[in-house]
Amino acid sequence: MKNTHSYTQDLSLSTDISYDLAQFTVEFSDDKIFVLLDSNTYEYCWDFVKSFRNIPKNQILIIEPGEENKSLSQVELVWNFLGEQKADRKSILINIGGGMLTDLGGFAASTFKRGIDFLNVPTTLLAMVDASVGGKTGINFRGLKNEIGVIQKALHVFMYLPFLRTIDEENYLSGFAEMLKVAIIGDVKLWSELKEFDLEEKSEEIIARLLWRSVMIKKEIIELDPRETGIRKALNFGHTVGHALESICLSDNHHLLHGYAVAFGMAIEASLSYSFASLSSDEAHDIQETIRRIYGKAPIELKEREKLIAYMRFDKKNEHNQINFTLVNKIGSFKINNYINEEHISGAISMQTPISR
Amino acid sequence: MKNTHSYTQDLSLSTDISYDLAQFTVEFSDDKIFVLLDSNTYEYCWDFVKSFRNIPKNQILIIEPGEENKSLSQVELVWNFLGEQKADRKSILINIGGGMLTDLGGFAASTFKRGIDFLNVPTTLLAMVDASVGGKTGINFRGLKNEIGVIQKALHVFMYLPFLRTIDEENYLSGFAEMLKVAIIGDVKLWSELKEFDLEEKSEEIIARLLWRSVMIKKEIIELDPRETGIRKALNFGHTVGHALESICLSDNHHLLHGYAVAFGMAIEASLSYSFASLSSDEAHDIQETIRRIYGKAPIELKEREKLIAYMRFDKKNEHNQINFTLVNKIGSFKINNYINEEHISGAISMQTPISR
Repeated sequence: MKNTHSYTQDLSLSTDISYDLAQFTVEFSDDKIFVLLDSNTYEYCWDFVKSFRNIPKNQILIIEPGEENKSLSQVELVWNFLGEQKADRKSILINIGGGMLTDLGGFAASTFKRGIDFLNVPTTLLAMVDASVGGKTGINFRGLKNEIGVIQKALHVFMYLPFLRTIDEENYLSGFAEMLKVAIIGDVKLWSELKEFDLEEKSEEIIARLLWRSVMIKKEIIELDPRETGIRKALNFGHTVGHALESICLSDNHHLLHGYAVAFGMAIEASLSYSFASLSSDEAHDIQETIRRIYGKAPIELKEREKLIAYMRFDKKNEHNQINFTLVNKIGSFKINNYINEEHISGAISMQTPISR
Repeated sequence: MKNTHSYTQDLSLSTDISYDLAQFTVEFSDDKIFVLLDSNTYEYCWDFVKSFRNIPKNQILIIEPGEENKSLSQVELVWNFLGEQKADRKSILINIGGGMLTDLGGFAASTFKRGIDFLNVPTTLLAMVDASVGGKTGINFRGLKNEIGVIQKALHVFMYLPFLRTIDEENYLSGFAEMLKVAIIGDVKLWSELKEFDLEEKSEEIIARLLWRSVMIKKEIIELDPRETGIRKALNFGHTVGHALESICLSDNHHLLHGYAVAFGMAIEASLSYSFASLSSDEAHDIQETIRRIYGKAPIELKEREKLIAYMRFDKKNEHNQINFTLVNKIGSFKINNYINEEHISGAISMQTPISR
């Protein structure tokens, strides 16, 4: 693809999203292409994209944005839309939005008529780094994040950096947290570069390179273990605590972005890594200080410790009713399947000195 | 497995279902095993099975039987049950029932926490031959059969012939139709044997052999083409018309079992095979006469032709808005991707002389 400056079989960094999508879908007739957006991406992103083809209005569905709408009822909307508009097994669904939308749209496509193809066009930094490889699709259910879903890769993912101009500071930092995570588990050089990245200036050129590097590390890990039985669990660093934090906030209608939850999760899990893996106190401190500098203090009160741990008990990653953590031995190197008892977890939360004082 | 007389990696013909299940699940702790039944299979089949383990009552879910309950709301029941009973990714769901139950339970398991393992214990002849290989899971949606689902193989399928004593004549014949289909597309010798099978006596020994043969033919085809992009479409013989018939009956609350729908579908598609493939008139007649002898006349009135064709337009197998048929060249040999215009389909329905006069 002429206009794309980084490219793999299933992923590209696009410099002209409309041109690239037109090229990619050239063999599909108009009536086979369906587009899913949320009201935000319809307002702010669709203009960048829409000239790629002449898609009839009735083949475009706009759903509600937000984590609270990553629900079964919105999946039903998508299924009904595809059915009513006569999508068949050779149709393709183009998901344009943040991780909520690409996860939900990917799940809807993967289950419609037992699975049709889909393309992801992530519009947030978080979705670019987190949802663009690995094929995790899903929705929230029973108040639990991604409780229902399948693992099914998008046919292709297009990352188009100018979309980042449409998101706010908080969403930018949310995505940046997942890049920090990838660096912490996999690449100490990337970690240094991310720490040096000027978050005021937000150079599109530099972030493109750092993003591509993060995604490639992630992709490498996932391809070794697509079903997450082993090494893919590396990517769960920060997520055992992070998901529990998100679930608490979701149940309280508190606002907390995924990346922030993961960032605070990593700070706590850095303490566990110091106690139960071989992470040095210097590196634990480096992680925790960097997170505090960028994300501030964790929104956890001590009295919520028990509730937080209760949510961890429901984590999908658990086995044999024990809470499972991925920890780091040193920055750039991880250790999966650390089962840690609740007393120690509780200790790490209350003791998360570097971030809460 | 000692007590099993036919066995492949993912499928066995069991002579002692309780013993075989106990052997298979020996490495699972009690709290990891969940059982799904419907109220019929709980009443008539569970007694054969239940001694395999001491499963706590709260790990057993009994749902409503019947095609009309192959619905999203019952899948939600299963998801809620698994979540509330703390199933995790190492848990296993045992589906005991007809095709409705194994399809629905397979879909629920394949999507719970992005997929847990499941075992199928089909209790009807139809489910043994049709739902036990190939990994098609799903539910009905928008009045369409299996509109939502995924392709995911059961970890193992146990076929236990004594369950056939619990089903009525009509359900027995419904399963027998799928065996006839497999013979027509793949094995002329099996076709002769099935025609000679004494449907009054219903010898368990003979049907076990014929069933195993049918399933092996089916398995062979599916393994060549798991995603149904080519040769697997062979198994759709009789199903383009059959599914449309089922959809009509479902929308009218008419009672029509899947195998009957497929049988009548095969009679009509035998006419199309005579016109558009090289099926001889003798063999077309043989197929239609055999179906008439066993299943009687199709419940189609001429005035419903248009409605029937309208349903065919929604068939999952269609591509490029044309109605797609699998036809037979001769008994034992098939031809996929026959796109036939609606006038000819209409003709074949009205002209299905051998079965409706």
